[in-house]
Amino acid sequence: MYGIAVHGGAGTLPRAELDPDLEKRYRAGLAAALEAGGAILEGGGASLDAVERAVVVLEDDPLFNAGRGAVFTFEGRHELDAAIMDGSTLEAGAVCGVRHVANPVALARAVMAHGEYVLLSGAGAEEFALGRGFSLVPNEHFRTEERWRQLEKLRRGDPRVSPLTISHVGTVGAVACDRHGRLAAATSTGGMTGKRYNRIGDSPLIGAGTYADDRSCAVSATGHGEMFIRAAVAHDVCARVRFGGRSLEQAVREVVFEELAALRAQGGLIAVDRAGRIVMEFNSEGMFRASLTAAGEPQIAIYRAP
Amino acid sequence: MYGIAVHGGAGTLPRAELDPDLEKRYRAGLAAALEAGGAILEGGGASLDAVERAVVVLEDDPLFNAGRGAVFTFEGRHELDAAIMDGSTLEAGAVCGVRHVANPVALARAVMAHGEYVLLSGAGAEEFALGRGFSLVPNEHFRTEERWRQLEKLRRGDPRVSPLTISHVGTVGAVACDRHGRLAAATSTGGMTGKRYNRIGDSPLIGAGTYADDRSCAVSATGHGEMFIRAAVAHDVCARVRFGGRSLEQAVREVVFEELAALRAQGGLIAVDRAGRIVMEFNSEGMFRASLTAAGEPQIAIYRAP
Repeated sequence: MYGIAVHGGAGTLPRAELDPDLEKRYRAGLAAALEAGGAILEGGGASLDAVERAVVVLEDDPLFNAGRGAVFTFEGRHELDAAIMDGSTLEAGAVCGVRHVANPVALARAVMAHGEYVLLSGAGAEEFALGRGFSLVPNEHFRTEERWRQLEKLRRGDPRVSPLTISHVGTVGAVACDRHGRLAAATSTGGMTGKRYNRIGDSPLIGAGTYADDRSCAVSATGHGEMFIRAAVAHDVCARVRFGGRSLEQAVREVVFEELAALRAQGGLIAVDRAGRIVMEFNSEGMFRASLTAAGEPQIAIYRAP
Repeated sequence: MYGIAVHGGAGTLPRAELDPDLEKRYRAGLAAALEAGGAILEGGGASLDAVERAVVVLEDDPLFNAGRGAVFTFEGRHELDAAIMDGSTLEAGAVCGVRHVANPVALARAVMAHGEYVLLSGAGAEEFALGRGFSLVPNEHFRTEERWRQLEKLRRGDPRVSPLTISHVGTVGAVACDRHGRLAAATSTGGMTGKRYNRIGDSPLIGAGTYADDRSCAVSATGHGEMFIRAAVAHDVCARVRFGGRSLEQAVREVVFEELAALRAQGGLIAVDRAGRIVMEFNSEGMFRASLTAAGEPQIAIYRAP
């Protein structure tokens, strides 16, 4: 048995704005990530490799707010955050405020493999990257015209656009359980459109946007990052399973519909346990998501009724 | 009823190196912080104000690894991290990689009060600070000769000194419960001597080094930061109380002696609940710590037998 799930952010474009062609491209992006990660699991590979690979595919897809296609900061730059965690060893690696590394999740994995640190930031993370053989790319690598237009709307004070407008929340992530019952989680994001002051969100924070522990489950979250940090969302799901005796589904629902709702936080999360059970839940209009288990066909969905 | 506890890091100098005069200075520093925070609680003030005030006193004391007296990075600079959290609202603020703000915990409080973000880093955090009326100080403000000697020993490869040598772990923190039963936690640090690559430790990470939730407890941790991040120490204590039905003491002991020990992580933490009960526990040789409740006399201790 194995299982993998990926997300491309919550909560999605308003249904009216998502035309059939765009929806098709989103679904294709999710399917490609699922397939890349799933192939590793199918071949007996590690969940850690599967989540990294799936997230790299989503980082490279300009539709999602991670890697290429990341949103712009207030100053018109891209600052990327990512994390990865191994549920078997509780090893973790993460980077934040990275501007010149094409695949931040791969850099997070390198930080984890190096072992001395868990979280590196900004120019220091890039210095580390160079020492580990990564090539740096210009910040323009991440630019897309659609994201630039979103920033311009925000700067103009367009009332239909806010940093939290759901179309701007497109963090990506993956969780997996491999044939050996090992769990892993990874998350990557460009953060919030128009963010300032080198703001760091929940994605690269172990316990907030990303957590994996073989004793409970693996979680990757997406949504209004500040609230997800305050609720320690990813670790909270794990703790409810481990200490509170909740089923995975119950733990996820409590966090999404009780804790996050109490903070008026929009978003969702994906989770998997050692039995390969997958739960994907959100309190926003939708969440780009896909899942695959050894037993079944790939499932891809955006809104509540797929 | 109210209660406050402060720590000045775990785990302390080897007992042999702590001469009576130095020990007296450490105890005086802890007593001053306890008194400053305790006076606010005694007067009916907020736990949030008490923990901020206590941590400011420790940041200003050159003996502790926070604010003035912070350790040096590998490059010979100071990069400071701090966080604060309000257990009543789950509001939180934090900063990391700050070089020019004398009291990082006060800046963390300002981030929290501003409300838009939780975690700001580096130059962006300082830009935010200027906008909120903070004065910047030169990085040399934080310099002490003792910390410089520690960096020089580390650079020379002195085998008695490692980034984890316990004398280099002097993070400070405070937790409090006020007369209204509101909990708060704050932590501040210069991090690990000789740290590189803009490494961020557990102190500024909500859920790792700092967490407060009126439904369980408030926690400030100190020790080998990377392991504390991986174990999500502060949130884990809260979760064991809230979901696992543990007493505060049992939850703290499980995390310090089981979870952290399994990761071979040295350190400790302080915690308080809404009844004003205080638990301070560590698995290192010692932890600089002090506590005060409405009912009793101040308690100050370093090693296991005070």
